[in-house]
Amino acid sequence: MLSRDENELLTRTGPGTPMGKLMRRYWIPALFSDQLSEPDCPPVRVKLLGEKLVAFRNTQGRIGIIDERCPHRTASLFFGRNEECGLRCVYHGWKFDVDGNCVDLPSEPWDKDFKRKIKITAYPCIERGGLVWAYMGPSELKPAFPEIEWTLVPSSHRYVTRHLQECNWLQALEGGFDVSHLSFLHQGTADGPDGRPIPIPTRYEVIPADCGLISITGRDLPDGNGALTANVMLMPFHKLISTSPIGAHVWVPLDDETTMNYSVEYWPDRPLSEEDLEESKNFHFIHPELLPGSDRAVLNKDNDYRVDRALQKSGKSFTGMFGLGIQDCGIQESMGPIADRTIEHLGKSDTTIIQIRRLLLRALQDFEAGGTPPGLDPASYRVRSGRFTMATWQPLAERVYDFVRIKEPAFAK
Amino acid sequence: MLSRDENELLTRTGPGTPMGKLMRRYWIPALFSDQLSEPDCPPVRVKLLGEKLVAFRNTQGRIGIIDERCPHRTASLFFGRNEECGLRCVYHGWKFDVDGNCVDLPSEPWDKDFKRKIKITAYPCIERGGLVWAYMGPSELKPAFPEIEWTLVPSSHRYVTRHLQECNWLQALEGGFDVSHLSFLHQGTADGPDGRPIPIPTRYEVIPADCGLISITGRDLPDGNGALTANVMLMPFHKLISTSPIGAHVWVPLDDETTMNYSVEYWPDRPLSEEDLEESKNFHFIHPELLPGSDRAVLNKDNDYRVDRALQKSGKSFTGMFGLGIQDCGIQESMGPIADRTIEHLGKSDTTIIQIRRLLLRALQDFEAGGTPPGLDPASYRVRSGRFTMATWQPLAERVYDFVRIKEPAFAK
Amino acid sequence: MLSRDENELLTRTGPGTPMGKLMRRYWIPALFSDQLSEPDCPPVRVKLLGEKLVAFRNTQGRIGIIDERCPHRTASLFFGRNEECGLRCVYHGWKFDVDGNCVDLPSEPWDKDFKRKIKITAYPCIERGGLVWAYMGPSELKPAFPEIEWTLVPSSHRYVTRHLQECNWLQALEGGFDVSHLSFLHQGTADGPDGRPIPIPTRYEVIPADCGLISITGRDLPDGNGALTANVMLMPFHKLISTSPIGAHVWVPLDDETTMNYSVEYWPDRPLSEEDLEESKNFHFIHPELLPGSDRAVLNKDNDYRVDRALQKSGKSFTGMFGLGIQDCGIQESMGPIADRTIEHLGKSDTTIIQIRRLLLRALQDFEAGGTPPGLDPASYRVRSGRFTMATWQPLAERVYDFVRIKEPAFAK
Repeated sequence: MLSRDENELLTRTGPGTPMGKLMRRYWIPALFSDQLSEPDCPPVRVKLLGEKLVAFRNTQGRIGIIDERCPHRTASLFFGRNEECGLRCVYHGWKFDVDGNCVDLPSEPWDKDFKRKIKITAYPCIERGGLVWAYMGPSELKPAFPEIEWTLVPSSHRYVTRHLQECNWLQALEGGFDVSHLSFLHQGTADGPDGRPIPIPTRYEVIPADCGLISITGRDLPDGNGALTANVMLMPFHKLISTSPIGAHVWVPLDDETTMNYSVEYWPDRPLSEEDLEESKNFHFIHPELLPGSDRAVLNKDNDYRVDRALQKSGKSFTGMFGLGIQDCGIQESMGPIADRTIEHLGKSDTTIIQIRRLLLRALQDFEAGGTPPGLDPASYRVRSGRFTMATWQPLAERVYDFVRIKEPAFAK
Repeated sequence: MLSRDENELLTRTGPGTPMGKLMRRYWIPALFSDQLSEPDCPPVRVKLLGEKLVAFRNTQGRIGIIDERCPHRTASLFFGRNEECGLRCVYHGWKFDVDGNCVDLPSEPWDKDFKRKIKITAYPCIERGGLVWAYMGPSELKPAFPEIEWTLVPSSHRYVTRHLQECNWLQALEGGFDVSHLSFLHQGTADGPDGRPIPIPTRYEVIPADCGLISITGRDLPDGNGALTANVMLMPFHKLISTSPIGAHVWVPLDDETTMNYSVEYWPDRPLSEEDLEESKNFHFIHPELLPGSDRAVLNKDNDYRVDRALQKSGKSFTGMFGLGIQDCGIQESMGPIADRTIEHLGKSDTTIIQIRRLLLRALQDFEAGGTPPGLDPASYRVRSGRFTMATWQPLAERVYDFVRIKEPAFAK
Repeated sequence: MLSRDENELLTRTGPGTPMGKLMRRYWIPALFSDQLSEPDCPPVRVKLLGEKLVAFRNTQGRIGIIDERCPHRTASLFFGRNEECGLRCVYHGWKFDVDGNCVDLPSEPWDKDFKRKIKITAYPCIERGGLVWAYMGPSELKPAFPEIEWTLVPSSHRYVTRHLQECNWLQALEGGFDVSHLSFLHQGTADGPDGRPIPIPTRYEVIPADCGLISITGRDLPDGNGALTANVMLMPFHKLISTSPIGAHVWVPLDDETTMNYSVEYWPDRPLSEEDLEESKNFHFIHPELLPGSDRAVLNKDNDYRVDRALQKSGKSFTGMFGLGIQDCGIQESMGPIADRTIEHLGKSDTTIIQIRRLLLRALQDFEAGGTPPGLDPASYRVRSGRFTMATWQPLAERVYDFVRIKEPAFAK
């Protein structure tokens, strides 16, 4: 449960908002690299943190993400010509390079200085893990790219999709770290190895980490050990999931009521097998089927995710919705565009959600006071989710750090 | 003509508004009983007075109408499982009974007290007249169910439909009690027995009644009598219509710009005949044709009610719109989502509308001052609309009371 | 570049706004005459400067444009019966003539005075140039109809279409007077006589005129002359285009985010030829193809004007959009519903736009101070756009006035 002010603080990400300013200190996924399939291909509209942008790949293959509006008279550069190392506005031919410089201004040929005074907002970009990432913060504070393992492995080791989620980013992030719902929402879709629902965890611990936090959940075994899972939150909106292959999500705010949910599966040390890929592509798990030419899922809120009440009744699916990703998306969207966290009732099973909110509120407070956001050291992301058995009668933190830490990064930057 | 403040006062019905608080003291139709066709059938979304709710019928056949949002983390209970005497949220399995108690809270098994602290908003329900009615006010003030005659007769005696009206409830109510439009709007659709337009009433009287008011309109006859009709307003949004079979409407605010119009025809003392039902089902009169699986009429504001200008020109239909119900709905919606009553010009023929506003404003004033809303005594609804001839040279009130009063309620509660 | 306040001042045209009050002093195109095809035909919905209206042609052929809302209880007169010299509300039969008088009030037959007290807002109308024009200002200040040449020629000499533009009127007007875009936006669609892009003008002069202003652009020739074009702005939202046949636009604000773009081609002194009409009707130039029964273009913002990226790449079309009118509309709409002029960077090539803003701001200032708006003398519109060669080493104004002035108005009012 949050106050109304806290809820606003955590959910609003537009320019000038506290969370918006904080998020702009991190690298943010903007689109797939292959949406800019070749040099000088058509530009692509991008929305990030409430800002309307266009992405383009120039003649040399470099990528630019710039304000959609031409600084001349605000015409959209989405309609621009991508040619000869720059995106040219079709209105008066003003041309911008990937760094935001005006490199041609043919409508004012008598004033050679004019174009030197013209700049367009341009965000530095980098391609990692099949995605284009943008940095939208102050240029002098641009961090090195974080060592997120799935972005560093060869593309053969990785499968990445994305879909729109029609709600605020924090609902999606919190849903990702809500562990107890595995025993309910996904019954019939993702049960335990014995074919029965995943038992409710009895242990919930959150261990602080330089990258964000580590959520430890699991059950105590008769022998004094715990059968535990470590899910990792990377600041500000990533999750590493304790599945095999390893899963990951990035929940990127497009605006405060729309989130792009990137879904990843990968092996750190080997290609995904045919079988792995078949599993990923059957829409049963985190990757939903999309409407053609769109980021929107076939099963979406306008059709109530085609909930099958007979299937739900049969007990074969707790929800009657097809696919784990749709179940997550559906239940999170059902809370409304921005959930009203002032009326919640949280318990021990919500420990991770409570701690994520505290982490974010503390990060905002420190940041507003002039501090550095957590997780900007690239090496702090050198962690991996997983499952393990560990004695639980003594403090877990040190041993967990040791477990999640990636000892030998196989693929350096 | 109202002031802007008065118009706001009468039209706004959300939680906390004066009219919203007043309306919550009455039983309100929420949905058809057969939308909850059997025990443990799928829940149904309901909206009432701006509140998003879900209705369900439990294993024992009891009906619950509860907040759509689970009090845990606000997921929608529309997607819930209706099973074993409760509606279970699919997110974490929290389960609620029809009274709003949390009867299972499986995600926190270690804390047996937790669920006792959890309540969900639940509104008492009752099934009457083929509908489920909800009471949304303070529980200690819940009135007995009003003796609305059509809710008490056997289902064979009654035909009930509903359709959405895309405007404020008060426009619909006022339209119902606007008598002089019968001589214009419905020309060609509902003419007099001589096949000519219904003559304009010359007499407009409003007689106060415990249930609300009685609107008397009609024409003076040469012999000193009046040929009169008594239409009855039952607080806060009912009408009894002086037709044969007897008609009735209930205009329920879903929100301030959408109204559910329930339309009823019934005989107090006998089943509707085949001929009666044929008339009711041919879409000529108050029951419009609906889009399949929807409460929206086929003829609606997006298609301008398919107004037939040639038909209108021909004089066979004053409006060129098909069906009396569509004519009413169309002209009322054409005033906008909430009519601007500050620019009206009312006359004697608007007497009933003026008096209804006074009644409602007075009821609001008394209510805000701590008084009891009118019409909460169930027996005060023991009235019936009708047509009659009566000497008009002496006061009508006592004789009208005698006429509309139901002497022998055939079907007690 | 404007301040936020200036941008608001220039773009808002609703009742009571400064620009709205100024515009209401001019005659404004409302619809095509043939939309009211004959006496007593169905009324037509019209929106002008944010006001919802209905237009009708009475039994005598006179046209009325009146408030959509009946003054009785605000029902829409769009559904009204147009009969016997008046538009009759279908709700209670109240009937209004084209001057806004209530000529029948049958629902209150006992009060013969009632109807004399009832007026509906009615705007004087005039048919000129195939259009119905309305005057929405104070009646005592109604100006004579301006001598816009294309409105005075026989219909054989003129071709007029219209289409919706989904942005503010000022974007459309400014786009019309943006000359340098001809060298870019329309490349491949409207090139020079040599088949090459129109060269960038080097001369930009704005000459004040009683009607508004004259925009002179062109290039200096080696012989000391300039090859010049004169485009004329007529207050408050007209353009005369220097093409052959002569072109014209009127950009009428329907509301602040929607503009009706009337597009005209005409000869002052002869009928349009078959060839002229073929050119006008092939959708290549200012007249776009419309969705059937609609004012919306087939190529519109919802389909990104079906931009053809391969065609754009080929260099055969700078934009990849089909049709000069669509290119203009598309780029202007791409600036958003109301362009943010606080972030612009204007140069010498934007001279006309800068001067138009100054003219309008000055006109607003004078008007608010009690002055008379410019261009209300009908004869001040006795001007014509065109192309000419003129010595440029001495002041142009007097010679330009002489060039644009229509010496012998062939078709008097």
